[in-house]
Amino acid sequence: MAKLNFDLQHTDTLSRARTGKITTDHGEILTPIFMPVGTVGSVKAVNQQQLTNIVQAQIILGNTYHLYLRPGIQVLEQAGGLHKFNGWQKPILTDSGGYQVFSLAGTRKIKEEGVYFQSHIDGSRHLFSPEKVMDIQRSIGADIIMAFDECPHAGCEYVYARKSMELTHRWLDRCLARLAETEGRYGHTQNLFPIVQGSTFKDLRIASAQYIASKNAAGNAIGGLSVGETEEEMYAFTALSCEYLPADKPRYLMGVGTPWNILEGISLGVDMFDCVMPTRNARNGMLFTTQGVMNMKNKKWANDFSAIDAGFENEISNYYSKAYLRHLFVSGELLAGQLASLHNLSFYLWLVKEARRHIIAGDFTSWKQEMVQRLKIRM
Amino acid sequence: MAKLNFDLQHTDTLSRARTGKITTDHGEILTPIFMPVGTVGSVKAVNQQQLTNIVQAQIILGNTYHLYLRPGIQVLEQAGGLHKFNGWQKPILTDSGGYQVFSLAGTRKIKEEGVYFQSHIDGSRHLFSPEKVMDIQRSIGADIIMAFDECPHAGCEYVYARKSMELTHRWLDRCLARLAETEGRYGHTQNLFPIVQGSTFKDLRIASAQYIASKNAAGNAIGGLSVGETEEEMYAFTALSCEYLPADKPRYLMGVGTPWNILEGISLGVDMFDCVMPTRNARNGMLFTTQGVMNMKNKKWANDFSAIDAGFENEISNYYSKAYLRHLFVSGELLAGQLASLHNLSFYLWLVKEARRHIIAGDFTSWKQEMVQRLKIRM
Ligand SMILES: [Zn+2]
Ligand SMILES: [Zn+2]
Repeated sequence: MAKLNFDLQHTDTLSRARTGKITTDHGEILTPIFMPVGTVGSVKAVNQQQLTNIVQAQIILGNTYHLYLRPGIQVLEQAGGLHKFNGWQKPILTDSGGYQVFSLAGTRKIKEEGVYFQSHIDGSRHLFSPEKVMDIQRSIGADIIMAFDECPHAGCEYVYARKSMELTHRWLDRCLARLAETEGRYGHTQNLFPIVQGSTFKDLRIASAQYIASKNAAGNAIGGLSVGETEEEMYAFTALSCEYLPADKPRYLMGVGTPWNILEGISLGVDMFDCVMPTRNARNGMLFTTQGVMNMKNKKWANDFSAIDAGFENEISNYYSKAYLRHLFVSGELLAGQLASLHNLSFYLWLVKEARRHIIAGDFTSWKQEMVQRLKIRM
Repeated sequence: MAKLNFDLQHTDTLSRARTGKITTDHGEILTPIFMPVGTVGSVKAVNQQQLTNIVQAQIILGNTYHLYLRPGIQVLEQAGGLHKFNGWQKPILTDSGGYQVFSLAGTRKIKEEGVYFQSHIDGSRHLFSPEKVMDIQRSIGADIIMAFDECPHAGCEYVYARKSMELTHRWLDRCLARLAETEGRYGHTQNLFPIVQGSTFKDLRIASAQYIASKNAAGNAIGGLSVGETEEEMYAFTALSCEYLPADKPRYLMGVGTPWNILEGISLGVDMFDCVMPTRNARNGMLFTTQGVMNMKNKKWANDFSAIDAGFENEISNYYSKAYLRHLFVSGELLAGQLASLHNLSFYLWLVKEARRHIIAGDFTSWKQEMVQRLKIRM
């Protein structure tokens, strides 16, 4: 089986936006793309047939930290990897677990060898080292796997950010060495994406992007953003990172974001996005639509029998009314979370497909400016 | 539009089982049938497309008590009735709210005029009278609507059971009078099913069944069972009620039950069933399958990668493994409830379809005896 391939197809003239096609052993991905997050091997409230047929997802994420704790590596190996375990036959990307170890786990200690942490489920003690995390991702078997990195919080001091970045670079080399010594368990190729860090310091971001670019990986990620900095900083450091990353490899901006964040990211040269926002906000009753943002619990929708969103083709968003969905939320019905998640994810996938269409048509920038204004409206 | 019609098609020779076809203004129902419960206009965790395409439900229930409180009559009328509100275009049956008033509501007082009760949501005070409940069911707009009855608990005293039954009969006459004075709001015919009561007293059951039969309704229901009596009593009083109800009208056994309860009920001459068990138990991890009953949270399924249930055709039950579904339950994922509910409901609908097939083939009784044994196995 073959290494991940990226065909850069169109490049916008008025922005850095581009379209492309990623080919993996589990199929193709047209970029720019949004990747729904399937934390423990399930995109919350949505099944795999719905992800394929309604959401039209092309690739989903899994979280290494969560999958390592549950169902655990032994079960995943016996199943034949995550694709077989959860029945998702298209591409999968797994993160390195770094972000969850820093945000979810109990007492944790960062050492040169890796991170010692306690499970948030049962308090049990574990070490995530670059080698261990590569081995776990071999057992999970995703098509795209992420390097183990430290992601410092926004606003950290320069000296901390520099040391953290240097540690991330040393860990990257250990990840690459481990992968060179091992093979995929399930017959398909796994492709490591290294991660640019450097917080919001210009020289560190450039140094990190140059170091990451020097590895000539199949794709590259931009980490350490959307962690508390301003939107302007996020866009500026995304742009800076993209500038130093190779144009002929896909660029993945981790953990971003709102629909308008994604459109801006595309305009800066990003090809891949993931975020829990469409599903998490959906469960809280917040919908992103072609007409703006709706709080479905609002009384104003009680008698509004128009479709949830008539602005794009979707068997859920075009079929159920705002009044019905509001009623499901107010009544605490489980179906509320399912329908809202299906809508938000479908909307995100529609949005990146539209962006792709406008990049190809040559009017991406004007379309994007209009959309960003519209999508932010509080309905 | 036309009154509900029932074609009695086949009658078994070794049991009282029969097959038939109910025709309503929203389409046909092949009997025997199981009706998923959609309490507030949503079958919990399952959307209407899934109910149609995966579960293959032919009719669903709504609860008058719940729908009256939320979204309320005004919203349902503005929507054009429940069919338009929730997007379910096939037949709907609504109960009379009696059962919920007695089991869920706060302080309640039964008077000749009706029942005074407090909402379980906000404590507000309401009266359900036979006239009021008919008016509410006119606003909801179900194809089959139920008479307002009092359902005494199992083990109540003879005198209480008799007085309660007599009250139910007087209320039935008031229901019929109210319906005669009013019309359906949405252009389709609504058909009242009266309800046999009489607790577990033979003379009362017979008297009640005779009284109900004398009304010559489009269909008849058997109430006051599955409320705490033994299975033997439930079967005996179902059989007795069926004996005195007309053979050429559908018979509906309310709130029953397990898969084996349903097979026994069919053998006694029942055509229609409803129960929250397939969905409620699903959410708790209890699955009914062609091989028996499974507790999905059990450790023994952790490494069992066989299909949830390969015993009948279903895109969910045949696709996801026991190990994956167990993992979803153990991890507290919302998808667990969706997949388990889809499985259990599909299994119930498959079971009544199989029963129908065996009645037509003439081997219902031997098939039923074997199935009842198999379905009860604790896997
Ligand atoms: Zn995010
Ligand atoms: Zn029941």
